[in-house]
Amino acid sequence: MSIVTTFEKPYYAVIFSSQRVADEPKSRNEYAEMSEKMLAMAKDLKGFLGVESLRSESGFGITISYWKTEEDIKNWKADGEHRLAQQLGRESWYESYTTRICKIERDGAYIK
Amino acid sequence: MSIVTTFEKPYYAVIFSSQRVADEPKSRNEYAEMSEKMLAMAKDLKGFLGVESLRSESGFGITISYWKTEEDIKNWKADGEHRLAQQLGRESWYESYTTRICKIERDGAYIK
Repeated sequence: MSIVTTFEKPYYAVIFSSQRVADEPKSRNEYAEMSEKMLAMAKDLKGFLGVESLRSESGFGITISYWKTEEDIKNWKADGEHRLAQQLGRESWYESYTTRICKIERDGAYIK
Repeated sequence: MSIVTTFEKPYYAVIFSSQRVADEPKSRNEYAEMSEKMLAMAKDLKGFLGVESLRSESGFGITISYWKTEEDIKNWKADGEHRLAQQLGRESWYESYTTRICKIERDGAYIK
């Protein structure tokens, strides 16, 4: 999932780096469903700008979501369904993860 | 390539999102070699904290490098070999890319 664009500065990003547990197809499907749901939900929230996401065969993933303000990120974090997803993430889906809240004041895009 | 750790705040990140061109094995090898060289070089530079990197089969990639200060990022960007790599990137390796310079004031890590 990729976007190639710059946004009005400053804007904000959440870098979420995670290692999935080795799990069964059933759990993998549940995870995939929740991921899609969370993405669809984020897209409807105030201040959402875009998302970039990748995961390797070995289960390491990076998801970066971009937001207009820090307040938008707080609202997203506090959303009820998202909180449930966070809890399931800790209980069932992730071996480990790191979350980083970033302020972006400079960016640049190149298109051939 | 993953790291799960927090760093002393504030610190800085460069999010580099890129789409590789569809290219020949020779060019792919040259790219892989240069990527490794650039990583080894960055690791030796002042202020380097870590890197996370993924690329999909379709050639979309995210590389996030973490640095102590913005000055460290400027030095890295200005390095002679890195400048050559940037030029080759535009000429030969990338269909498109976005570079974002981030300041990180909050982070958190979870390990099961």
